[in-house]
Amino acid sequence: MKAVQVVGYHQNLELKEIDEPTVQGPLDVIVKVGAAGVCRTDLHVLEGQWQEKSGVELPYTIGHENAGWVHAVGDAVTNVEVGDKVILHPLMTCGLCRACRLGDDVHCENSQFPGIDTDGGYAEYIRTSARSCVKIDDALEPADVAALADAGLTAQHACAKAARLLRPGDVCVIIGAGGLGHIGIQSMKAMSAATLVVVDRNPEALALAREIGADQTVLADGGQVDAVRELTGGKGAEALLDFVGEGGATGEGVAMLRDAGNYYVIGYGENINVPTIDIISTEINFIGNLVGTYADLQDLMVLAAQGKVKLHTQQYKLTEFQRALDDLDQGKVRGRAILVP
Amino acid sequence: MKAVQVVGYHQNLELKEIDEPTVQGPLDVIVKVGAAGVCRTDLHVLEGQWQEKSGVELPYTIGHENAGWVHAVGDAVTNVEVGDKVILHPLMTCGLCRACRLGDDVHCENSQFPGIDTDGGYAEYIRTSARSCVKIDDALEPADVAALADAGLTAQHACAKAARLLRPGDVCVIIGAGGLGHIGIQSMKAMSAATLVVVDRNPEALALAREIGADQTVLADGGQVDAVRELTGGKGAEALLDFVGEGGATGEGVAMLRDAGNYYVIGYGENINVPTIDIISTEINFIGNLVGTYADLQDLMVLAAQGKVKLHTQQYKLTEFQRALDDLDQGKVRGRAILVP
Amino acid sequence: MKAVQVVGYHQNLELKEIDEPTVQGPLDVIVKVGAAGVCRTDLHVLEGQWQEKSGVELPYTIGHENAGWVHAVGDAVTNVEVGDKVILHPLMTCGLCRACRLGDDVHCENSQFPGIDTDGGYAEYIRTSARSCVKIDDALEPADVAALADAGLTAQHACAKAARLLRPGDVCVIIGAGGLGHIGIQSMKAMSAATLVVVDRNPEALALAREIGADQTVLADGGQVDAVRELTGGKGAEALLDFVGEGGATGEGVAMLRDAGNYYVIGYGENINVPTIDIISTEINFIGNLVGTYADLQDLMVLAAQGKVKLHTQQYKLTEFQRALDDLDQGKVRGRAILVP
Amino acid sequence: MKAVQVVGYHQNLELKEIDEPTVQGPLDVIVKVGAAGVCRTDLHVLEGQWQEKSGVELPYTIGHENAGWVHAVGDAVTNVEVGDKVILHPLMTCGLCRACRLGDDVHCENSQFPGIDTDGGYAEYIRTSARSCVKIDDALEPADVAALADAGLTAQHACAKAARLLRPGDVCVIIGAGGLGHIGIQSMKAMSAATLVVVDRNPEALALAREIGADQTVLADGGQVDAVRELTGGKGAEALLDFVGEGGATGEGVAMLRDAGNYYVIGYGENINVPTIDIISTEINFIGNLVGTYADLQDLMVLAAQGKVKLHTQQYKLTEFQRALDDLDQGKVRGRAILVP
Repeated sequence: MKAVQVVGYHQNLELKEIDEPTVQGPLDVIVKVGAAGVCRTDLHVLEGQWQEKSGVELPYTIGHENAGWVHAVGDAVTNVEVGDKVILHPLMTCGLCRACRLGDDVHCENSQFPGIDTDGGYAEYIRTSARSCVKIDDALEPADVAALADAGLTAQHACAKAARLLRPGDVCVIIGAGGLGHIGIQSMKAMSAATLVVVDRNPEALALAREIGADQTVLADGGQVDAVRELTGGKGAEALLDFVGEGGATGEGVAMLRDAGNYYVIGYGENINVPTIDIISTEINFIGNLVGTYADLQDLMVLAAQGKVKLHTQQYKLTEFQRALDDLDQGKVRGRAILVP
Repeated sequence: MKAVQVVGYHQNLELKEIDEPTVQGPLDVIVKVGAAGVCRTDLHVLEGQWQEKSGVELPYTIGHENAGWVHAVGDAVTNVEVGDKVILHPLMTCGLCRACRLGDDVHCENSQFPGIDTDGGYAEYIRTSARSCVKIDDALEPADVAALADAGLTAQHACAKAARLLRPGDVCVIIGAGGLGHIGIQSMKAMSAATLVVVDRNPEALALAREIGADQTVLADGGQVDAVRELTGGKGAEALLDFVGEGGATGEGVAMLRDAGNYYVIGYGENINVPTIDIISTEINFIGNLVGTYADLQDLMVLAAQGKVKLHTQQYKLTEFQRALDDLDQGKVRGRAILVP
Repeated sequence: MKAVQVVGYHQNLELKEIDEPTVQGPLDVIVKVGAAGVCRTDLHVLEGQWQEKSGVELPYTIGHENAGWVHAVGDAVTNVEVGDKVILHPLMTCGLCRACRLGDDVHCENSQFPGIDTDGGYAEYIRTSARSCVKIDDALEPADVAALADAGLTAQHACAKAARLLRPGDVCVIIGAGGLGHIGIQSMKAMSAATLVVVDRNPEALALAREIGADQTVLADGGQVDAVRELTGGKGAEALLDFVGEGGATGEGVAMLRDAGNYYVIGYGENINVPTIDIISTEINFIGNLVGTYADLQDLMVLAAQGKVKLHTQQYKLTEFQRALDDLDQGKVRGRAILVP
Repeated sequence: MKAVQVVGYHQNLELKEIDEPTVQGPLDVIVKVGAAGVCRTDLHVLEGQWQEKSGVELPYTIGHENAGWVHAVGDAVTNVEVGDKVILHPLMTCGLCRACRLGDDVHCENSQFPGIDTDGGYAEYIRTSARSCVKIDDALEPADVAALADAGLTAQHACAKAARLLRPGDVCVIIGAGGLGHIGIQSMKAMSAATLVVVDRNPEALALAREIGADQTVLADGGQVDAVRELTGGKGAEALLDFVGEGGATGEGVAMLRDAGNYYVIGYGENINVPTIDIISTEINFIGNLVGTYADLQDLMVLAAQGKVKLHTQQYKLTEFQRALDDLDQGKVRGRAILVP
């Protein structure tokens, strides 16, 4: 089969002809790839940023946001059948460690991460685990949802935590209305009655934000902290979802937060650097967020099937992978780039 | 001033001329009544159902769903000012007992209940406490919201409990799309991404339910349990809000519930009568619901101001109180009857 | 190997020589049985109470409270190794359904129940799943803990729910200081600072209760409701763990409960039969409890290893199974009867 | 009456004769001071650290950890009577703002802080609010508990948050076994079954820690991070209560934390300075903590009355205030210094 592989760092991916994966373990599932998201992390992989951390042996197939159709299943697979339309949770988890048993499978002690530390989905077929397969609604196609597998899931996970605590009229600031923030706005709108205030540097992103659920938008032109405090009667927001995490966002975010508020760290780049006296005198919390659980992905697929979360995508053939990556690198992709067969 | 009073049980209310209430304690607030909801409980009061429980001395002014404008305030009042538009929480609570200090003011150990055990709002003015006054949005009028003070608050309180636990795609059955259920549908829709299945005997109520947020409706024609189980793949619903509580609703409700599901008891009349073995083998819970807290009423006023919760009302002049009660008794009121000055 | 089997209902168990179980699936684990709890449920099985519900084909090996040493493992087993000392969760769960993925494995949609619907542990060896094996501390022996696998786990599960909500000084009534209640007292004491009030008909059980953590004891001599209300300043208890569930316990239990209190249903027999108006006017909750999760069993084994939960046991050889059952039936067992090799 | 007052910054307190406070508002309570804790914050007040923040006008009476007997009450006071033995919550809160109504009175929008921004308890009498008075058990004396009013309450509040999430066997690291940590160890022990690992630089503090509930102690000699990781099988702790917050504690604390762990910020001095990528890749949380609610203080008084939380104190006469402060400043106080009449 065709597969796009990392053959070396700081050099281009290569399209290769390799053997189709086969069922080897009882929970293995072979999926015919219907769509693979092209993500900024793929660029980072090629830059060698994950080389040491993943320890993956080259060459290997890249691609960690995958959806498609079940092609073959191992003996012990009971949750999907050949022909099922599925999206794949980014992690293959063991199901036996304490974290998995508590439902917190993202912290599985024995997980694999296809596309990062084992073969991923820039290919015709991918081997995954029954534990990674989430069936999707008949009305959805793999190309519609593949890019929700990782980026969207991360947004959903953080939003679900926030929504559980927010009451009607509480203000939730969303910093960053790009890829993840765009999903986050829709998730929050679907799951809570909080007032959503979206902050971004890009007026077009804010215009889209208003269309998909933002109650208020604030241009990040230097006056955004004051603007948010004014919108909140000088008190700040009960919750803040930071999808940016760099360029000064965290300092500004803290200044936008109300006493006893929750700061959800999602985007990354800079440090959270706050005096402990400020943390205690305001009694604010910083909440880390890492991808999401299998159940979070099921939830997100429900919201997608209900039309409550939609993703803008730009499709490329698998063989056009280089153009997709180049477009992404050059900022030419509107929404998310997707590779299709 | 004019006031409509209970002068005896099993006899009609009477319009009387009495003294205006005045500020007597430091937290007292005098409210010019802008609207008073006419509730089935008022009929029950006249039938003597509350006589022993309330121990109220006759005559007294009836009316427990009140909204209006602040007319005068005591020395220690800091949360409202003369002229403010307010809705009144049905209870006057002490603020000092353990329950009040935990935010659970409905279980205040020293509360009064205007319209039931002290003078209520079928009058030109009412004396209440600063602790009962919730400011309402400029865009709302007392007559729009008065009937949310008790009935609506009860629905909001139960829905908030349910919404906190429900995930996207979870099914929430709502039994009864009448006065409270009608608010409950709107509250649930605003606060969660659960799938709402509304059950009622009345096709018109179901038609309205669909307009205001029901995802599915089921006519209670005898086949409702089977219908709900079929809609849930044979598994039943994760949550059930029972706004009826009589006529067999509880038995049917339990049969509609999924393993580990939550049954919210709101309507009342019959007994919850379930074998303990069924409760443990399914691990279901029964959750009691009593009015709602002050903060719940604030939340409901936010949803009302945002247009997410709307109430159909039918207005009568205060002096037309008898016609309002008669219409209610004879089932002629569409939505909620409201007395206005 | 030797195995004690159900060969017919309403007749005695029989000791038989059958083949040793072998690994057949990738997650299978063969355990050399070190101890098997003798439980009242075993008597109920013989009386045919489970015949229809379980649908088990006779003959089969009884015994659902098992602990021992890992003897052989399937290919996909990563959490235990041959030689490990383990206690077995009563259910064999799939790990793939929504409930399993949420950590709520007791509600697995595809579970088996060894000793009830498949071969259990009154034998030299038992086949189980990696998902049922919880490693126990070096300091514990199978015979010390086997009877915690089902009865103890049920108590632990309910207590953990209750402890999470109770604050220091809150009162938790425990009805029934027998097998489960005895564990419950110790679990509650270890996990909360609530005041434990234990109610039982048996003065000896109350004496033991005081030794293991009860703060107050109340003899169930007819005055127990008044006694509990007096101990709680007339207000009732914040929580009530009912390990009895019959003989009028539920009615008395409800009368012992404070407004907004939680009633944990654990023992069973009679109906919860309460007017809905009482449920709403007090805003109490009834919480069902069914066994416990895998993680709950891990937690209980931690408490056992720390010496915080201890069990009185009476040992019998496997071949003495009939005497053990007879003693149990005739009320001659002090603590729990255990079969050992 | 006698009162010890701040008459200028960077100069000594002075004992003065001033008028006794009187009831002025309906919720006012005059308390005859039975004990006032001498706290490091008092030294900071004299150094002018609170000058700008509090805006208090000099001279005023210092002392924010107070207990005593109710001497007089305002008209609206229902929760205490003359003669009652009480401890005073450090804040006087309004009871009417949203935070107060939610039970989160520490974030009251209109609070006063006696001893900091209004007259405190280094005096014969103090004026406080009914909302600040917590009755204490007959078995406790003001001098036993006064120092729990602020420092102890802060520890209790953070511990209660942590205990609610910890399961048996989870590890809770406690950094700092001094004044607050010492209370924290006892609170955690009373409210959870977590394993407590206490870290301190002082071997004597660790010896005391072991006496009052620490399961393990680790000397902070430079190897404390490795020691904690080794004690936790290389995984780190589920929770960490940092009572130090300076001198590198936060960096070390983060390194001691397990994936998905919670870091409770209590002590202060340095910054939390952590790369966002580390926060998300480990999905850890930082939880701010500010004093505690009125109900938290009630809970702590329950634990004190039960003998579960004890405080070492060193008493001085009110007139010996200067010696008490000097001893504190010079590190000569064992436990907490207390002024008594």
